[in-house]
Order: sequence, then structure tokens, then C-alpha cells
Amino acid sequence: MQRAELTEKILDIKREKGWSWKYICGEIGGFSPMLITAALLGQMKLTKPQAQSAAKLFGLSKAEAAMLNEVPYRGSLPSAVPTDPLIYRFYELVMVYGTTWKELIQEEFGDGIMSAIDFDIALERLPNPKGDRVKITMSGKFLPYKYYGNTGNIPEYGYKEE
Amino acid sequence: MQRAELTEKILDIKREKGWSWKYICGEIGGFSPMLITAALLGQMKLTKPQAQSAAKLFGLSKAEAAMLNEVPYRGSLPSAVPTDPLIYRFYELVMVYGTTWKELIQEEFGDGIMSAIDFDIALERLPNPKGDRVKITMSGKFLPYKYYGNTGNIPEYGYKEE
Amino acid sequence: MQRAELTEKILDIKREKGWSWKYICGEIGGFSPMLITAALLGQMKLTKPQAQSAAKLFGLSKAEAAMLNEVPYRGSLPSAVPTDPLIYRFYELVMVYGTTWKELIQEEFGDGIMSAIDFDIALERLPNPKGDRVKITMSGKFLPYKYYGNTGNIPEYGYKEE
Amino acid sequence: MQRAELTEKILDIKREKGWSWKYICGEIGGFSPMLITAALLGQMKLTKPQAQSAAKLFGLSKAEAAMLNEVPYRGSLPSAVPTDPLIYRFYELVMVYGTTWKELIQEEFGDGIMSAIDFDIALERLPNPKGDRVKITMSGKFLPYKYYGNTGNIPEYGYKEE
Amino acid sequence: MQRAELTEKILDIKREKGWSWKYICGEIGGFSPMLITAALLGQMKLTKPQAQSAAKLFGLSKAEAAMLNEVPYRGSLPSAVPTDPLIYRFYELVMVYGTTWKELIQEEFGDGIMSAIDFDIALERLPNPKGDRVKITMSGKFLPYKYYGNTGNIPEYGYKEE
Amino acid sequence: MQRAELTEKILDIKREKGWSWKYICGEIGGFSPMLITAALLGQMKLTKPQAQSAAKLFGLSKAEAAMLNEVPYRGSLPSAVPTDPLIYRFYELVMVYGTTWKELIQEEFGDGIMSAIDFDIALERLPNPKGDRVKITMSGKFLPYKYYGNTGNIPEYGYKEE
Amino acid sequence: MQRAELTEKILDIKREKGWSWKYICGEIGGFSPMLITAALLGQMKLTKPQAQSAAKLFGLSKAEAAMLNEVPYRGSLPSAVPTDPLIYRFYELVMVYGTTWKELIQEEFGDGIMSAIDFDIALERLPNPKGDRVKITMSGKFLPYKYYGNTGNIPEYGYKEE
Amino acid sequence: MQRAELTEKILDIKREKGWSWKYICGEIGGFSPMLITAALLGQMKLTKPQAQSAAKLFGLSKAEAAMLNEVPYRGSLPSAVPTDPLIYRFYELVMVYGTTWKELIQEEFGDGIMSAIDFDIALERLPNPKGDRVKITMSGKFLPYKYYGNTGNIPEYGYKEE
Amino acid sequence: MQRAELTEKILDIKREKGWSWKYICGEIGGFSPMLITAALLGQMKLTKPQAQSAAKLFGLSKAEAAMLNEVPYRGSLPSAVPTDPLIYRFYELVMVYGTTWKELIQEEFGDGIMSAIDFDIALERLPNPKGDRVKITMSGKFLPYKYYGNTGNIPEYGYKEE
Amino acid sequence: MQRAELTEKILDIKREKGWSWKYICGEIGGFSPMLITAALLGQMKLTKPQAQSAAKLFGLSKAEAAMLNEVPYRGSLPSAVPTDPLIYRFYELVMVYGTTWKELIQEEFGDGIMSAIDFDIALERLPNPKGDRVKITMSGKFLPYKYYGNTGNIPEYGYKEE
Repeated sequence: MQRAELTEKILDIKREKGWSWKYICGEIGGFSPMLITAALLGQMKLTKPQAQSAAKLFGLSKAEAAMLNEVPYRGSLPSAVPTDPLIYRFYELVMVYGTTWKELIQEEFGDGIMSAIDFDIALERLPNPKGDRVKITMSGKFLPYKYYGNTGNIPEYGYKEE
Repeated sequence: MQRAELTEKILDIKREKGWSWKYICGEIGGFSPMLITAALLGQMKLTKPQAQSAAKLFGLSKAEAAMLNEVPYRGSLPSAVPTDPLIYRFYELVMVYGTTWKELIQEEFGDGIMSAIDFDIALERLPNPKGDRVKITMSGKFLPYKYYGNTGNIPEYGYKEE
Repeated sequence: MQRAELTEKILDIKREKGWSWKYICGEIGGFSPMLITAALLGQMKLTKPQAQSAAKLFGLSKAEAAMLNEVPYRGSLPSAVPTDPLIYRFYELVMVYGTTWKELIQEEFGDGIMSAIDFDIALERLPNPKGDRVKITMSGKFLPYKYYGNTGNIPEYGYKEE
Repeated sequence: MQRAELTEKILDIKREKGWSWKYICGEIGGFSPMLITAALLGQMKLTKPQAQSAAKLFGLSKAEAAMLNEVPYRGSLPSAVPTDPLIYRFYELVMVYGTTWKELIQEEFGDGIMSAIDFDIALERLPNPKGDRVKITMSGKFLPYKYYGNTGNIPEYGYKEE
Repeated sequence: MQRAELTEKILDIKREKGWSWKYICGEIGGFSPMLITAALLGQMKLTKPQAQSAAKLFGLSKAEAAMLNEVPYRGSLPSAVPTDPLIYRFYELVMVYGTTWKELIQEEFGDGIMSAIDFDIALERLPNPKGDRVKITMSGKFLPYKYYGNTGNIPEYGYKEE
Repeated sequence: MQRAELTEKILDIKREKGWSWKYICGEIGGFSPMLITAALLGQMKLTKPQAQSAAKLFGLSKAEAAMLNEVPYRGSLPSAVPTDPLIYRFYELVMVYGTTWKELIQEEFGDGIMSAIDFDIALERLPNPKGDRVKITMSGKFLPYKYYGNTGNIPEYGYKEE
Repeated sequence: MQRAELTEKILDIKREKGWSWKYICGEIGGFSPMLITAALLGQMKLTKPQAQSAAKLFGLSKAEAAMLNEVPYRGSLPSAVPTDPLIYRFYELVMVYGTTWKELIQEEFGDGIMSAIDFDIALERLPNPKGDRVKITMSGKFLPYKYYGNTGNIPEYGYKEE
Repeated sequence: MQRAELTEKILDIKREKGWSWKYICGEIGGFSPMLITAALLGQMKLTKPQAQSAAKLFGLSKAEAAMLNEVPYRGSLPSAVPTDPLIYRFYELVMVYGTTWKELIQEEFGDGIMSAIDFDIALERLPNPKGDRVKITMSGKFLPYKYYGNTGNIPEYGYKEE
Repeated sequence: MQRAELTEKILDIKREKGWSWKYICGEIGGFSPMLITAALLGQMKLTKPQAQSAAKLFGLSKAEAAMLNEVPYRGSLPSAVPTDPLIYRFYELVMVYGTTWKELIQEEFGDGIMSAIDFDIALERLPNPKGDRVKITMSGKFLPYKYYGNTGNIPEYGYKEE
Repeated sequence: MQRAELTEKILDIKREKGWSWKYICGEIGGFSPMLITAALLGQMKLTKPQAQSAAKLFGLSKAEAAMLNEVPYRGSLPSAVPTDPLIYRFYELVMVYGTTWKELIQEEFGDGIMSAIDFDIALERLPNPKGDRVKITMSGKFLPYKYYGNTGNIPEYGYKEE
């Protein structure tokens, strides 16, 4: 069994039952809906109790429940540049603003990155008379590059003389 | 003259003067610092007065100022998959969460996309005892797919009989 | 069940019945034939009543009808550069005229794009003694890039001092 | 001298003079502005008299004028998938609607393609209270695939017996 | 059913029966053997009577016969650069001689292309004491680029003043 | 000096002088115009006397003449899939007819390839009331795959026992 | 049936029987073991009697035996750059020594190539106290580029005047 | 000035002076030699005092020293798959052992990654009678994926009802 | 049967039984757990006795056991640039530090590579109050490039005069 | 200075002087001509005395001589799949015979690779009445994969309990 087959099965049941992600995430609970949805789409893992709930909801086998509790091989898209327009727009933001984000984050925080692991994200609808807006709030821990020197706990580089 | 050469010149001067983006954006003003920085990096355009200010600040020629007021060919990165770790993390988010964002945005808004054009974005520092966090807030207009029918103002498809 | 399997099934039935798209789109109705065809090929969604009609016409299951009412992961081609000659010609137009369209649209409208979402399109046959012509009329809303400044409703970039 | 260098020179002069494409195309005349712009961007050729006019307008050398009268190696974009958002939207249309266009054109015209060579195109602004629209009208000759049989003017395939 | 599956079935039967293409093309008739073979390999379409004959010969179902009468999604190779040595040699010719063909065709015919649609081709064996040769004769209609001007039957570009 | 720079220089002089390839090939002589043009475009080599003639005609240095007598690193196009429409059409023929050529050549000749090295090619104009045609005649030596057995002049595979 | 499926079946039987290639090639005979192995892996063809022997040995159907007598679509690897370390080393040799081989072969032989078709190859084990070595001996016919002139047996290029 | 030009200048001076990295890193000091070398190759930043020392050692301008104190756009290789054999071997390890590392790290640590940012690394020579060995010791902080729930400090996903 | 199918089967059983790699590697024994895990994931081979043990543990057929004793076609990832974040970090290290490793290894050892074949590797957990760390220790034999001269045991290059 | 520039300079001088590689390699001496040529083409290093000789022969500066004594970033080709026909044939051999070489080398030697580092190679001309042949003899040390177990000199994997 591959994770993609389990995802397809879950989507089949969701379609037949006519359930929304809101309903499903409410039933499973415990995490943000973003994470639960991502797990059911094969990108995150559920805890054992959540996997149990999901198994009950979707009528999954014990092995399928166990798979939901496994860390998947991540990467949800079939190509390096996404073809789906909704997803492409996010890729486009990276292409256009990538170097700007780099400059501004580094000016404020120094050399390092925004973690995509110690990371949370939320979606909201912003009502707006000119057309509602999608609001996305992300927050990732800043991880400074470690610049280590002569007193580290790993062997000093420099090929000791024998 | 190519836009990339102008960007390189601006970065050379910034480096020699020891200026920060904060200072530069303050001097030029009028837009969010995110946009001014993006424009100086060759991804957005400045207004004419802003381009004037930038020209004065950086000692640019008239033609160089005019170029800052032009819309660039966008795309700031040298490869389809970014190699710089700070920028890659954003790409990774698209790879991992792309299908999840699609599901949740569409469940709430219907068929359409979050605009990357009618779009604003801000960076903040979230102080945190376990390590400060980078907070990014985006808001893009939701654009519903247009499903048009038999009364549109363009000719109906269907190859009229002559 | 994957959307591609449903598309294959629909094409199988269309072939066996000997139906034309014209006939099929007439039976389903409500949208332009362009959109209905695109939906049946797995690139757009039908409304629920249309999906019902399609299900009746093609003898689809309830789940298959529900799938036609879902937004698909878009991208109809198996490679980034199309190999089919009819489709390649459109790609070629983008390669050859891309920068020209950019210059002329931006000169007239300013910085922004032609929406591919709030977009309609029609095909017609132009009779012509030297050989009939395919006429394509597209109309997409112009979306100006949003250049926002110091009074936006999202937090100002600039990392407040604590 | 490479065509790209000539294009860069022309854009430099256009910028310094503050000319619009409308003005430039009016000065050169004879073709649609779309074609003249494409030629100056290195994708089409001008006639000799047009190249002369362009040379006079931009102060080009005799060799540069001759180059404008040459057929260029076409392909205006630096990557197979465009990164510029305005141009990408056209690529996206090909990705999403490619198979649909194929089905509908072939149903109406039979097996063949819409020519991208015997082809004309125009841009218009469609005023619209909800936001003006970009209207694009294309017309390409339909070219039927040639299915030839036993009486052609080229040698019949089939490896004659000696 | 996908066209590739039908191709595989046809090749299976050809193998079991021990038929040559020469025999098969003779049985189906009407077109050059090159075109009939291409159709059976999923790259061209047969006429209805030819599809009937093919169905009889290969014992195909009505739906399979109908599929042979459909225009396929063209592109017979699994990668953009062919790996099979026989086919690669043709690709190599394009890589090595591409710019030469462009220069010489354009010098003789002006700006345009050799059509790959209104196109015929034949293969012959040229007996030769040093080793027989494969002779390929192609003839494609020259299609001049259409350079259109101010009196065309499509709206003039130039954004009318309102 | 790189071969591409020499090609650019030759094209510059050709443009300034207003020479055709026909004239140039006539001046250099000895080979088919196809080969001489290919050599001047950096894809083939000229003989020493031809290189001398070319040097005289174009006013080249001794080193430049020597370079024309060198075998170049072949490959005339900047990308694996050509973007220029005239050249692309040949690539398209390979994509569409590649497997057909393979089947028919192998049926007639057995396992092997048409050489792209022991190969000649000619272009002609076929006058035609419906539009002149480009005729291309190629002839390449058939090279059978060598299936060698137990009596070859290279050591037999099979890891001798010591 | 696809050739890859037949290869998989043959490898399944080889594994179950515990046979070596040496044994298999001895049973089939007639060619070098290199070629027989390549054929069973789907890259070369066997003669009819060899295919018969193979069919007997592996218990193949008549159609499967016929397939072993067919020329396959060659290309044994799933990606353009091999990932398997043993095979990658050969690719690496091409990357590192490619231009050197070109220079030295051309200096000795003139313009042309070493054929990969009229080609034989053998593997040996070279015993060596510091570790045995793999010895590979290749021999390919040198094929000179054909430079043809004004008296060829194909029509002279040069577009006759009508 | 681009970082690559500065790297090239530094390597030119290193070569002319005949300095080793060991000597250079000793002169600059403060960090592990691995990091100083990486910085001089354009992949890390030096501190201001280190950049000063480097500038003195290499005779760099003030602007060049400032550039060494900047965070570079990281990515040291000209292609996504490295061609240099020494570097390729590391890529190969990722290709072959990637999934194994994933399984074992996750089994021990749970869902997360080994940081490539909070990361240190050392090289040593392991003397060995059969041939000395390169020993590499890496240590990266384990970063657990953040699974956040209903009490986070960012707005809960779920589109509030207005 | 393909190796990937066997890997999938093993993972299915591991999941159903709820076994850890630690347990499995303990049962099979003989090699480092890293190697046993890699073998079960289809990247290394087990010895015959190990394959036997694995077959007993997982209830595999004789042919499946034999397959575990075969050398697989290595390459564990579905794309040249890994999308899974844990694995990508290792790729990132190669991109960022590749040229640095090359400089430092070569300065110490001379021209050559660190073997990825005569290679061992271990993972450890480094407890750390700020967050435990993943420690990886690799050791690969240094292989010097062989620079051979005029007295080698293979024929001297230089094309003997006949 | 980049290695490619030095290679270009060396080729310029070779061309002007009319020297052959045979002559050049004779003058420099010490290594096989294959290695000296590769070094001058930027793929190997010369020893200091050889670099001295080369500098004298070509009139190189001290820094240029030092560069010839450096290990280059290897990879001599501008694309992952070579376009030059002579070099492509070697790539083709890898594509066609890659899996066969793997099977036969592994059957004879066990799991491992043929080293491309401890490797020598020679070219010869094989006179042959049907056309001379290029003979290539390679010999690379067989490197067995190291399968290490419980008594290695690196820490045992298995995450010690604290």
C-alpha cells in the first residue's frame, strides 16, 4: 500500500459522503484543520488517537490507520513547477519576492532562515466590499546559521599531524 | 543596459555607503518597504517621483531613473528550484502544503485563486523566549473562476452555420 | 478514483455513442461549450445540476457526478512543452510574442496582468476563400499590481522596536 | 553583433527619449503595431524601408538596420516555463485549456492545426465598469493534416524490388 | 481506454500473426504506408472505412475502431531527447543542421517555415555497393509569415480612445 | 577565441556586405552549399583551401582561418527543444514520426540505423500552384547493428578462469 | 505486452531458477554473452533460433519468443543521468573525458565518430594484487563525416531557377 | 560587483601567492576553517573583523571587504546534479541512502529534520594501512515538526462566520 | 516482480506488525542497521543467510528472498532534487558546501575523491539541553586519481605507425 | 581567471602554432597523452614540472602555470546529454548497455563498481580493410561495496540509551 492510494481512498469516501474538510477536521480534532487536512492528503502524520478517529470516520483498516500515523515522503505536487493555477500563484510569489524576502529577513535577523518545520500557518477570509480576500498568516522560528569556532564539541578540522 | 546591471549597481552603492534597506526605503518612501526593496532588486517598478528620489540617493543617470519606473521582466531567481536555503524554505512550503491550501481555500471560497497581483504582504518580528519568529502576513484578493454562459458579450462558441 | 480515470471513462462513452461535443454540451447546457468540454476533460468543474445532467447522459455513479462538481488539480498536458502540434502552436505564440504582449499591455494598462481566471474565450470559424480560419477571442480582466503604502490594513513592515 | 544586443540598444534609446511603442510604431508604419514591436524586440523582421525608418528614428548604423531586416532566431523568453506573471498567464491558458482547444477545433475542422505563421492578432481595451478588460483576437489559418495516398508526386514508400 | 493501450494491442496481434507493416498497409490501403503505420502507432487517424478494415483485420471492437478514426494526442516518444539510436540520429540532424536549414530556406523563400502538417514523406532503399542507403524525401508547403498591416479584417491594435 | 565568436563575426560581415549564402558558397566552392553554410555557422569544418578562400573573402586572420579548418563541438541550438518555429517543425517530425520511421526502416533493413555521419542532404524548391514547397532529400548509409559471436578479434567476454 | 514486462518475467525466472547469465548465455549461444544479456534485458534482438532456445529455456509463449526477435525501443535507464553508482561511473567518464576523446580521435582519424552500432565490446577480469580490475575493450568502426560536393547522386542544393 | 567575481579574485591571489587554505584560515581565524573557506568561496559570511583581516591579507577594497560580511545567495554548483566526481559522490550518498536516513532518524527522533542551519561539520584524515580515509563528522540540531492545535497565538483557521 | 514492489510489501508487513527498524535489524543481524535498512528499502543487498532470516521474519517467498540477495538498481528518490524536507537538507549541504569540501579534501589528500563505495556511516543521538542533535559520522576511503605514464600495462595511446 | 579561459588560451596558441596534441604531449611528457590532453582541456591536473614545461611551451604566466597544477572542477560538457555526435555515441553506449554492464560486472565481481578514479584508458587505431576502427581499452579497479558489521571503528548505529 502506498500513501497516495490511501489519500485517494480518503478522498473517495469524502466525496461519497459529501463531507467538508471542516466537518472531518472537527471529527478528528486536536490539531489545526490545516495540519489534519495535510495529513489526510499524505503530507503530515496524525497522532495515534487521531489516526484512530480517522479510521473510525472513514472505515479504514488497522494498517491504514497505522499509515496515517507514519511520517510520509513529503512533496504533494507532480512537477517541480506547479501547473495548478491556485498553487502556482504561491510559486510565483517565491519567484518574484524570493530575493526581497531574503534581503529583509536577513537585515532584521542576521544570517539564517525562517524555519519551515517549526512553523505554523493559518488561513482566514477577510471580508472586503471589493471582493473578499484570502489572508494567510505564517510564523516560523528564525534559525540563525551556526558559526562555530575553535571550541566546539566536534573534532577541529585541520588534519592533525600524526 | 539591463535591469540586472542596474540592480548590481544599486547593491554596490548600498554596500559602499553601508546603508540599510530601512534607511533606503525611508528616503524613497511612499510604498511599503517590501515593494521598494523589490523594485530596487528589479522585480517591481517605482513611481516617477520615487524613481527620482532613488536616482538622487544613488546618483543614477536619467536613463537609470527611467528604468526604475519601468515594469521589469519578473523572476528573481537563477533556477526553477531555488538553491538558497532561506528562499528554498518558501518553495518547500509550496511543495508540502500546496494541495492543502488548494483544498481549504476552495472549500471556503469556491473555485478560484488567491491573487498574487492584488496582493499585499508584510514581515514582522515576533519576539519569543524560545527564539524570535518571522511572521509573514499575506492578503490576496480571491478571484473566482469566471463560468460564463449564453449571454456573454463575446461571440458564442459553436461555429455558426453560414 | 482519480479525475483522469473519470475523463477516460467519459471519452470512452462519447466514442461508443458517437456523440459530438456539440451534442454533449447542448444536453448539459448552462455554460459555454468551451467550459463544459473543459470540465469533462478534467480542467473545470460543473455545477451540481450540470453534473446531474452529465451523470444521466453518461450513466455515471453518484460519486462520479460529485467528482464533476469538484475543482480539479489543473494542468491538462503530460509535459511542460506540449508535443501535440495543435497545442504546441499556442505554446509557440507565447514563446515568440510573450515579450511583445507584455510591452503593449503594460503600455496601455500600466503594471499588471490579464487575468486567466476572470477570463472568457470563444472559438469561431472564419470562412475564407484561401482556407477557413480559426478565430479565437479572449477577454481577461486587467488586474493592476497593487502598490500599497503606509496606510494599509495589514501590519506595516519594518520590525517594530520592542 | 547579436540580435539581443540590438534589442537592448533600442530599448535604451526608447527609455532615454521617453517614447511609447505607439509613437515608435506610428513613425515606422506599414505593419500592425504588434508586428513592429515584435520586430524591435527581436522576434520578427521589418521590411527594408521600415528598417530604414527605424534606423533613422533610433540613429542606427547601416549594419544594425540590415539586422532588423533579417529573420531572427525566434524565442523571446529565457526559460521553457515563463517566470514573468503577465506572460505566465498565457502559458497557463495553454496548460489548462490545451486539450479542450484541441477537441473543439478538431471537431469543427477535422484533423489539423491553427497556424501560428499565417496568423494575425490584435489587442484592444474593453472598457468595463468592474475593471477594464484586455481583449485579444487571434485568427490563424486552419491547416489540415495532409493525408496522401497512392498518386502523390513523391516516390511511393514501400522499397521497390530491384 | 487509452490510445497507447490500443497501440499495444495492435502490436501484440501483429507479432502473433507474424505480419509485416507492408502486409498490414496493403490490407488497409488508401493512404501511404507511412501514414497507416503512423496511425496504428497512435500518431495519425484513419478514415472510417480504413478503421473498419483495420478492425476486421485485427479483430477490434467497435469502440476500438472508432478510436482509430480519432485524432490522437501526438508525440510518440517517452522523452524530449530520444534515447533510441535510430530515432536519435534524426534528432541529431536537427541539433547540428537546424540553423543551416533555417538560413538556406529563408534565403530562398523568405520569412516562414516548412509546414509539418501539409507535408508528405517517403522512404526508399538506395542500393549501393558500399552499403545500401536509406533515402528520405520530404516535401512540406512553405508557409510565409503573415505580415499584416492597417487594413486587416481584425480590429486594429492601438487601443481606441473612448 | 571561441567558434561562436567567429560565427558571429562572419555573420556581421555577411550583413554589412549584403552577401547571400549562395554568393558565399559560390566563392568558397568545393562542397555542397549546405556543408559550407554549416561550416560557417560553426557545425562543420572546411578544408584548408576552402578555409583560405573564406579567410580571403571575409578578411579573417590566420588563426581564424585555422579555426574554420577545425572540427567544432557540434550542436547549433541553445536548448534541447528548439524554440524557433522553422527549426521546431523538424523536431516535431521526429516526435510524431519517430517510432514510425523506426518500424519501417527496420522492417526493410533489419536492426540498425540510418547514419547521420555518412549522410547527404539537399534542399530544393518545388513550384506548386497552391504554394511552393520545400523539398528535402536525405540519404544516409544504413548501418546494421553488429551482432558478433565467438570468433571476434577482441577478447571473448566470460572472465577466464585463472 | 511491453518489452519491459517480458524483461521482468525473464528476470523473475532467472531468480527462481538461480541461473547465472553465464549459464543462460551458454544455453542460448551464438552471440557474445554481452549481446545475449543485452537482448534479454530488452536492448538488443535475438535471432529466431536464439529466441526459440530462450523460449524453451524460460518457458515463454510463442508471442514472447517473437518479441525477443524484435528490435526494441532502446534506452535502458529511467533517467537521463543514471542514479545507479556502477552505471553512473561510465556517465562520469563521458562528462570528464568527452572533449579529450573528441580531440584525440579527431587528430588521428579526422572528422567523424566512433560508431556505436558497428561496435563490439568485451569485459575481462584483470587479476591484480592491489585489487582485481575490470577491463573493458571496445572497438567501433570509425565513420568519417561525409563531405560531398558538386557531383553527388542527389539533387544539388541551390534552388534552380524556373 | 558580483560575489562570484570576488571569489574568482580571491582564488587568483591565493594561486599567485601559493597559499594554502590552512594558512589563510589561520590568518583570518575565529571560525572553523570549514566556514572561513566556505565564506571565501562565496557561501557563508565573515564577521566584520574577519572580513577586515581577509581584506588586509588579500589586499581587497573596502567594498570587497563589506561584501565578505554580506550573506550570499547560496548554491555553489553550476547544475542541479553535480558533475565533479568528488562532489558527485556526496550527491550519490543522498540518492542511495536518502530514504534510509529518513526512516532511521524518524524512528529515533520522531517527525522532523536534521537542521542544515544549526549545523556543524568537521573533516579529519583517518590513517589506514589500506589507504587513508576521509572522516566527516556532522551534527545538526533535530528540529521536530511543529504540530499545533487549538490554542496557538495565531488566528485559528476556520473562516469565522461574520 | 520489481524491487519496489518487494519494498512496498516489506513496509506493509512492518506496519501491520508494528515493528521498528531496530527490532527488524536485530532479527536479521550481521550488518550495521544502516545497511540492513537500506537493503530492505531496495538500495543494498543482504547476504544469503540474512535474506533467509528476512524471508522468515516477513514470510517472503523463495523468489523474494533471492531478490533481497540481488544488487538493486540504486537510486531511492523519485526526482533529481529531493522534495522531502528531511532528505532535502542533505542535498542542500551538497549545494552549499560542495566546493568547500572539494577544496579542503584536495588540499589535504591531493587529487581524488572520498569513496562512496568503500564507505561506512553511523547515526547517533547527541543529547543536548538546547535540543538533541543528530550526529552523523562518515568515513570513506580516499581514492587518488590515477595518473599513469609511459610504462603502464595497457597499450600506450598514440596510434602506432603501421 | 577561470580554468575555461586558460583552456581557451591554450587552444588559441595550439591553433596559431599549428601544433598537434601528439607534439604537445611529447613536449610535456611524463603522463599518458590522454591525461596531458585532458589536463590542458581543464579536466585533470599536471604535476609542477609538467606545468612548468607547459608554461614554457605556451608562454604562460606563473599564475597560469599554477592553475594547471590545480585540480579543476570537472565536467567538460555544456549539457547533461551531449549534443556533439562523437561524444554522444559514448553517452548512447551508457544508455543502451548500462544495465547489461551492471549485470555482468556484478555477476563476476559481486556488488561494487568499476572505479572511474583508479582508472586508465588508451586509444588505438585498429587497421581494418572495411574501415579502420577506434579501439578503446579501459581498466578500472573493482571497488566492492563495503558491508560492515558490528565491530567497525566508527560508532555503532543504534542510538545508545542514556
